[in-house]
Amino acid sequence: MSLPAGDGIRTGAVAGGTAAAAGGSSSFRAMWRELLPVGRHQDSGGYRRYAWTGADADCRTWFRAQAEARGLTYEVDRNGNQWAWLGDPLAGDAVVAGSHLDSVPDGGAFDGPLGVVSSFAALDELRRRGAQFTRPLAISNFGDEEGARFGLACVGSRLAAGQLTVEAAHRLRDGDGITLPQAMEAAGYDPDTIGPDPERLARIGAFVELHVEQGRALDLTGDPVGIASAIWPHGRWRFDFRGEANHAGTTRLADRRDPMLTYAETVLAARREAELAGALATFGKISVEPNGVNAIPSLVRGWLDSRAADQEALDAVVTGIERAAREHAERAGIDLDVVRESFTPVVEFEHALRDELGKILASRDDAGRAVPVLGTGAGHDAGILSASVPTAMLFVRNPTGISHSPAEHAGEDDCVAGVIALADVLEGLACS
Amino acid sequence: MSLPAGDGIRTGAVAGGTAAAAGGSSSFRAMWRELLPVGRHQDSGGYRRYAWTGADADCRTWFRAQAEARGLTYEVDRNGNQWAWLGDPLAGDAVVAGSHLDSVPDGGAFDGPLGVVSSFAALDELRRRGAQFTRPLAISNFGDEEGARFGLACVGSRLAAGQLTVEAAHRLRDGDGITLPQAMEAAGYDPDTIGPDPERLARIGAFVELHVEQGRALDLTGDPVGIASAIWPHGRWRFDFRGEANHAGTTRLADRRDPMLTYAETVLAARREAELAGALATFGKISVEPNGVNAIPSLVRGWLDSRAADQEALDAVVTGIERAAREHAERAGIDLDVVRESFTPVVEFEHALRDELGKILASRDDAGRAVPVLGTGAGHDAGILSASVPTAMLFVRNPTGISHSPAEHAGEDDCVAGVIALADVLEGLACS
Repeated sequence: MSLPAGDGIRTGAVAGGTAAAAGGSSSFRAMWRELLPVGRHQDSGGYRRYAWTGADADCRTWFRAQAEARGLTYEVDRNGNQWAWLGDPLAGDAVVAGSHLDSVPDGGAFDGPLGVVSSFAALDELRRRGAQFTRPLAISNFGDEEGARFGLACVGSRLAAGQLTVEAAHRLRDGDGITLPQAMEAAGYDPDTIGPDPERLARIGAFVELHVEQGRALDLTGDPVGIASAIWPHGRWRFDFRGEANHAGTTRLADRRDPMLTYAETVLAARREAELAGALATFGKISVEPNGVNAIPSLVRGWLDSRAADQEALDAVVTGIERAAREHAERAGIDLDVVRESFTPVVEFEHALRDELGKILASRDDAGRAVPVLGTGAGHDAGILSASVPTAMLFVRNPTGISHSPAEHAGEDDCVAGVIALADVLEGLACS
Repeated sequence: MSLPAGDGIRTGAVAGGTAAAAGGSSSFRAMWRELLPVGRHQDSGGYRRYAWTGADADCRTWFRAQAEARGLTYEVDRNGNQWAWLGDPLAGDAVVAGSHLDSVPDGGAFDGPLGVVSSFAALDELRRRGAQFTRPLAISNFGDEEGARFGLACVGSRLAAGQLTVEAAHRLRDGDGITLPQAMEAAGYDPDTIGPDPERLARIGAFVELHVEQGRALDLTGDPVGIASAIWPHGRWRFDFRGEANHAGTTRLADRRDPMLTYAETVLAARREAELAGALATFGKISVEPNGVNAIPSLVRGWLDSRAADQEALDAVVTGIERAAREHAERAGIDLDVVRESFTPVVEFEHALRDELGKILASRDDAGRAVPVLGTGAGHDAGILSASVPTAMLFVRNPTGISHSPAEHAGEDDCVAGVIALADVLEGLACS
């Protein structure tokens, strides 16, 4: 079933299929209903669509069926990403819309699928409008965006963009010890073809990813749709607080070197520093030794996740947290090591494309209102691809801001507004 | 090798053996050196003397050899506790000194063995003094005091005192699934005899346990030896802080329900409340869900260990911590459940015996100074036996307060002072 780049392209009719007649909003609803039960866990109500599993295969089958129903040219690239083409894939300067269909463990219905479903629905909307395409258009589903199975996010786009080496990809293993190549092969894909795909990316003139917002910025401005400015720089820091194990039932308070206290002070300092800087800081993971009810810990290890709109703000937050931690540690006789475990610099989406999207959307608004431009703390395939391709993102309002949870939600009207905005953007970019 | 109560008592010479000639301090040093390497782990430098293991057998062999070298009557009771008798074990109103030889994982050299070694050394000291015994004297080693292997402390004394049923003891399993009876049998003891031993306990008129202090109270008063007043009431409470799992990279601070923050506030509140009440409160164990670096936790579960000198103080501390936790939880939108998982009321050592010890020791002091009387947060065989037998404890100064650690220490001069104090007490109680 694996089709290396440029090979095996099915040349279906490029003219509108039956689905086109439905137009954007109704075809969106029909597709959404169809995809909703796929990979949903009965007990949690969340999705478990992990890369190269049965649920993932069902999502891929659905994608192919959507492509074929619209007479699009379906292909799978060398890294397992799916593409549905209107027009010549090899012509170059293509406009591509897409996202992913996989999920985090017990994730929501919207993170990923909203972008793929909206892309097909936007094409239907453009066909309803009778738009004339002057550039090739493609819809894409990038594989393994969430990294739920192998622990690394955006594997499909990273491989294509050369940001993950084949050797490193071969070393990826899931919780059962199954390697990525084994998993791909078991799913019917050829793992020997994985690797950089610069020619494919060079044929893309613009990539637009629509995504449910994972915060509440649009809910606060009252807008159904926004444009991404940048993916915030973000990183992970490990704080090792080392004290002295001792008997919790006999050691006087004054004689203790209890690292849990310094950890607690640091958790609260992180919140304060993030508030001051308008940034994010979270201690969500902890490991304690010996972790006994009647033992003062010898070691509390806490992981800080911090993100901010720019590097300066992020530096200020992390420096402030570390300073507070060191002050408390010194006072309590705690040894502190802080190790930066990972770091991703800011991803600024291309200003020209972003501005073009803003102009297109403002021109479609009755009052000419500008669409809000907002940053995000989350990583996306668009962030990976932005190093190789002019890339933009649209966000759809998330009234609770909840994401990566079965409670993740976007209103139907907002989803339809997203479809229309994406159609407007694709029309502005790819049609005469 | 198992000898049920009253059976198989070896009637050795009750007059002094060769060890007696050495006197208390030098015989203490010799025994200490002999016991020091037994069950010590090469890498950690700590002790791994777990019940019914090879290291435990070596300790028991050492105990028996000490008894025989002094011409004492050696026996093992139905629960595997060792006894060495001077005088008639069946005569009644006996004075017993003892402690335990097993250890926590990587424990120190003093917790337990100091009491057993000091008991033999105190007998040597009394023989050197030419003391005339008017009551039977015994030295005891209670089995499995630390509970390191089967998870329950004071198994030997609990069984004897009827505070652990035979059925419950049969259900105890170690980490490898081996039951207590299987472990006893493998060590050459008869597990079919275990159970309450009221007749044996009824023959004891006073039990005195000498133990290294597990705090720094004596270091602060500058005394080498103290008398126990009580074992503090203590308990464990589980605090379940439930918030809302969400994406740490995208969720605005204002939209979060992050239970880690409320946990941190509670950890600090526990410290403050304990300081106010002169009590102890420790959060040493934590469990977090989903415990992911980029996930705001849905659940933070923390265990509080709290102890205080009396019930009123303990109630005040725990009530204060819970109140603070609830206030912070309410403000942060966190659901809080507090469950008391275990509780042990105060153990007051018998006032008459405690006062008698105080009088004996003050009378031996050149200046007639009173020995300090102090409470302890740790459990002991003496605490179990105090329900059945008049019981007292002596503590030996621990200059760092560190216990349950290879760093546990007591100075040699203080250990010898402990031997002399124990000898004084035994002489006062058992000699004419």
